Amino acid sequence: MDAKNHYTIGIDFDTKLARGVLVNVNNGQFAANVDFLYPHGVINHRLPDLDVELEPGWALFHPNDFIDAIKQIVPKLMRVSQVEVEQIIGIGIAATGSTLIPTKKDGTPLCLLDEYRHEPHAWPKLWAHTGSTEKAFLLSQLANDRFETFLDRYGGKIDPEWFFPKVWELYENASSIYNAADRLIEAADWIVWQLTGVEKRNLCAAGYKALWSKTEGFPLETFFAAMDPHLTKVIDKKMKREITPLGEQVGELTEEAATWMNLSPGIPVATGLLNSYAAVPASTVAQPGKMALILGSNFSHLILSNKEFHVPGMSGMVQDGIVPGLIGYEAIQSGGGNLVSWFMNNAIPKKYFKKAQERNISINQLMEEKASELQPAESGMVALDWWNANRSILADDDLTGLILGYSIQTTPEEIYRTLLEATTFGTRKIFETFIASGIPINEIIVSGDNLVKNELLLNILANVTRMEIKTVASPYTAALGSAMFAAVAAGEKSGGYATVQDASKKMAHLDEKTFIPNNTDKKTYNRLYSEYTLLHDYFGYGHNNAMKRLKNLRTTILEKKNR
Amino acid sequence: MDAKNHYTIGIDFDTKLARGVLVNVNNGQFAANVDFLYPHGVINHRLPDLDVELEPGWALFHPNDFIDAIKQIVPKLMRVSQVEVEQIIGIGIAATGSTLIPTKKDGTPLCLLDEYRHEPHAWPKLWAHTGSTEKAFLLSQLANDRFETFLDRYGGKIDPEWFFPKVWELYENASSIYNAADRLIEAADWIVWQLTGVEKRNLCAAGYKALWSKTEGFPLETFFAAMDPHLTKVIDKKMKREITPLGEQVGELTEEAATWMNLSPGIPVATGLLNSYAAVPASTVAQPGKMALILGSNFSHLILSNKEFHVPGMSGMVQDGIVPGLIGYEAIQSGGGNLVSWFMNNAIPKKYFKKAQERNISINQLMEEKASELQPAESGMVALDWWNANRSILADDDLTGLILGYSIQTTPEEIYRTLLEATTFGTRKIFETFIASGIPINEIIVSGDNLVKNELLLNILANVTRMEIKTVASPYTAALGSAMFAAVAAGEKSGGYATVQDASKKMAHLDEKTFIPNNTDKKTYNRLYSEYTLLHDYFGYGHNNAMKRLKNLRTTILEKKNR
Repeated sequence: MDAKNHYTIGIDFDTKLARGVLVNVNNGQFAANVDFLYPHGVINHRLPDLDVELEPGWALFHPNDFIDAIKQIVPKLMRVSQVEVEQIIGIGIAATGSTLIPTKKDGTPLCLLDEYRHEPHAWPKLWAHTGSTEKAFLLSQLANDRFETFLDRYGGKIDPEWFFPKVWELYENASSIYNAADRLIEAADWIVWQLTGVEKRNLCAAGYKALWSKTEGFPLETFFAAMDPHLTKVIDKKMKREITPLGEQVGELTEEAATWMNLSPGIPVATGLLNSYAAVPASTVAQPGKMALILGSNFSHLILSNKEFHVPGMSGMVQDGIVPGLIGYEAIQSGGGNLVSWFMNNAIPKKYFKKAQERNISINQLMEEKASELQPAESGMVALDWWNANRSILADDDLTGLILGYSIQTTPEEIYRTLLEATTFGTRKIFETFIASGIPINEIIVSGDNLVKNELLLNILANVTRMEIKTVASPYTAALGSAMFAAVAAGEKSGGYATVQDASKKMAHLDEKTFIPNNTDKKTYNRLYSEYTLLHDYFGYGHNNAMKRLKNLRTTILEKKNR
Repeated sequence: MDAKNHYTIGIDFDTKLARGVLVNVNNGQFAANVDFLYPHGVINHRLPDLDVELEPGWALFHPNDFIDAIKQIVPKLMRVSQVEVEQIIGIGIAATGSTLIPTKKDGTPLCLLDEYRHEPHAWPKLWAHTGSTEKAFLLSQLANDRFETFLDRYGGKIDPEWFFPKVWELYENASSIYNAADRLIEAADWIVWQLTGVEKRNLCAAGYKALWSKTEGFPLETFFAAMDPHLTKVIDKKMKREITPLGEQVGELTEEAATWMNLSPGIPVATGLLNSYAAVPASTVAQPGKMALILGSNFSHLILSNKEFHVPGMSGMVQDGIVPGLIGYEAIQSGGGNLVSWFMNNAIPKKYFKKAQERNISINQLMEEKASELQPAESGMVALDWWNANRSILADDDLTGLILGYSIQTTPEEIYRTLLEATTFGTRKIFETFIASGIPINEIIVSGDNLVKNELLLNILANVTRMEIKTVASPYTAALGSAMFAAVAAGEKSGGYATVQDASKKMAHLDEKTFIPNNTDKKTYNRLYSEYTLLHDYFGYGHNNAMKRLKNLRTTILEKKNR
């Protein structure tokens, strides 16, 4: 090893596993990368080692899994890379969010105390927890009725995944737990606290998930009081008003944490952040003009700008939220990977699985291959990608999916391709809304899990958006991002960087393969997109509220059925 | 056997098999029934015993299969029933149509002659043959341009399945075969000819499939001349202007035909007819006010009336076409069984087949069971059943199917039920169009193949149409119908009947089980039907021509691809 090289460690605490990387700060090369699957996984049926069943839609996690992940990942990173402890100039943490961990004053999660471990609400709630859905709906309504200005920064809607719906759910359903919790904290901040002994709140999670902004701070106490008088002081009593910018040093590794990791105490630890945002500068998006498109179960569209515009239906707009000095805009396409998974699980006939088996390829491969043999518009079909409603740009929970153009010749691969096309039309709709709102986009960089390997999807995306699509196919993008923030927190004097932009320039790299639109398909997709738009506007803007009426009727029927 | 009983034989020459019944004329009881699977089946890949491949969409049959069917079925009927030859007072024949058999003057099909057997066009063409699609389109256009009054009797459209599109296809693609054919004849008439030595043309096929009517006869020679001058005289040269009513005696069994059957020569043979129409009086529909709904690959809606109304989008209106003395109206729902088969083949995931296997039930049973557990409107979905376009009432070939209301919770059984519901909405649309046009319907009698056993479908149908649904679940309905026409041809003097109505009253029976609507589901389906109607009118009447534009684009793309 070259003793002159400096390294940082980044760990991405994702939903089912943690991913760690040890990165050369000069060039972003990975000296090692390690995965760790959480022993308890997502807890959604019963509490660990207890006979306590959870309601449908619940999603908890075990805080010890995070500490175990650290203990496993870091020593292995060091061992594999043969990097010297002295070469490590910083540690960065990213995690999913919004999470809600109720803890005692010293950071001990309530669920680890015998007194509370049998109580589901004492456990940390994962972003995917849907027990807070009704509260989110009521919160949106309340904010709307009160003309709260913060709503404009979130496209008029508060999502169930966010922080305060979970807080309200906790208070209303388990006020004793709420009262017992000295602190309510995000996972990324809790992990940083465990490493440094310092409790801070990161700007990214506060901005995107807890209604905070640099200029306005948190919502007024009267807003929390309107939720419930007992929640009036929630910020001052159980959170912090002081919000820590990204890329700063929160503290240094404690003696204890250093022993977990086989590292030395004193190594700087950077502000934590949410993992999807950490992926942005790691996919070279650290300046205005580029869009980072993250292909997860939802598709996340992230754009930086130095100008403030109100973009219709955006899910978040946060000054300094991703890269200090810039406004980070986010739009969420709620179909995305969810839609593809739905198709894979529910609509592929037996004979296709047989074919895939015979050829010894995965069903995903088979579908991609078969659908790739089709021309754009060959199926005669078009779809609205609203299987999971529409977050951006319509911000309407009551919309549902549609497929038009079925014939008795329609094949599963035609439907599959139609759904992929529909998701890219959804992306184009978002993309055009940004541009029309004054935020230019000249480049799209795609990252994510499985779908980033779907070349058919990326080809369609190129032709539908009429832009060259660049990719980062590595699953370690968020881990790299947190390693980059660690390099910024370490600063130039220690061999790191002064800004995220500098770090991004040196440490972030794109895949060589890109996806380039061609004139024929571009034209065909323009025609298909105009059909998408016509249906989008007809069903999305209330010309025919069939989707809403059917959803209402469904709710009534289900209520009667379950009575 | 009671020697006083009289019997008739009815044979239904269906697409893949022939079904024969030997029926007690007094009460319609079957003394025996026999099936015979055609040795050659539907010929759609290559000519029998020859290396001649057929183009996609071709559907031919072997005329010897019909004679073999007679030779196998009738002796077995006699053997099983132990009925005496003297007790048989008549024979009736029904077959699919329109078929086109080119023959020599003596009735020998050209395809049986060495000179012609290698030529695909010399072979009999089945109703399902689609090589005539373009000609049907041009014929509709021509008739429209010439303001031909006959078009009004067919909802403005000539279908590819009919007689003259096949004639034109034959002439244009194989004029030497056309010229070599002394006669062009329907299968039912050809079989009767083989049995009696008498060549007649039945009114049912002439009326529903060959543009003939009692008052106007065939189209004018100038119409055929406009197709091609060589076709000007097609009626007089290769067909007959004299059309035989149903329920008449065409002739008597010849010596030769009697030996095929182990019967005596001289037994009366009735006018042949098309099998779906034969099923009508056999399902008790022989008077105005009832609708016979035949659930095949298409759904056929047949209603009798003594008044002439122009019903929009009907596929046929023929005076005396089903029951002498009444006008037989037909509407075709082109989705129907096709749509259900499409779903079964293309959209059921592997795990469902596994479940069905584990429980040792068919996949159809599993789907019906699972979908039956759902309440109406529980899925939140609605569909347009236009997978095979829309024959009645829109008469538009360029419409395609649609499903609205998908979510990531949507299950295959929800889609299945939605498709069944959509077909019943299509039925209601037809049903209401009849009523609005002045033709009352007070009762629906359902018959057909597989779907008539689908109790879920019939339950939905009852609630959607808000009528009690009565059924004839026997697959021998068309065979029984032809046995009834044989009893009418034999006449009262021989122990038969004077009219089809009399025969229907005595010989036709319904199943005991009926399907009765309930108030809750009726109301829910009224709401769903209003959503169907809104979409039906929006996409069907040109408010959004997305389906047509996409179909056009698809055609262009496919032409380029295949170039």
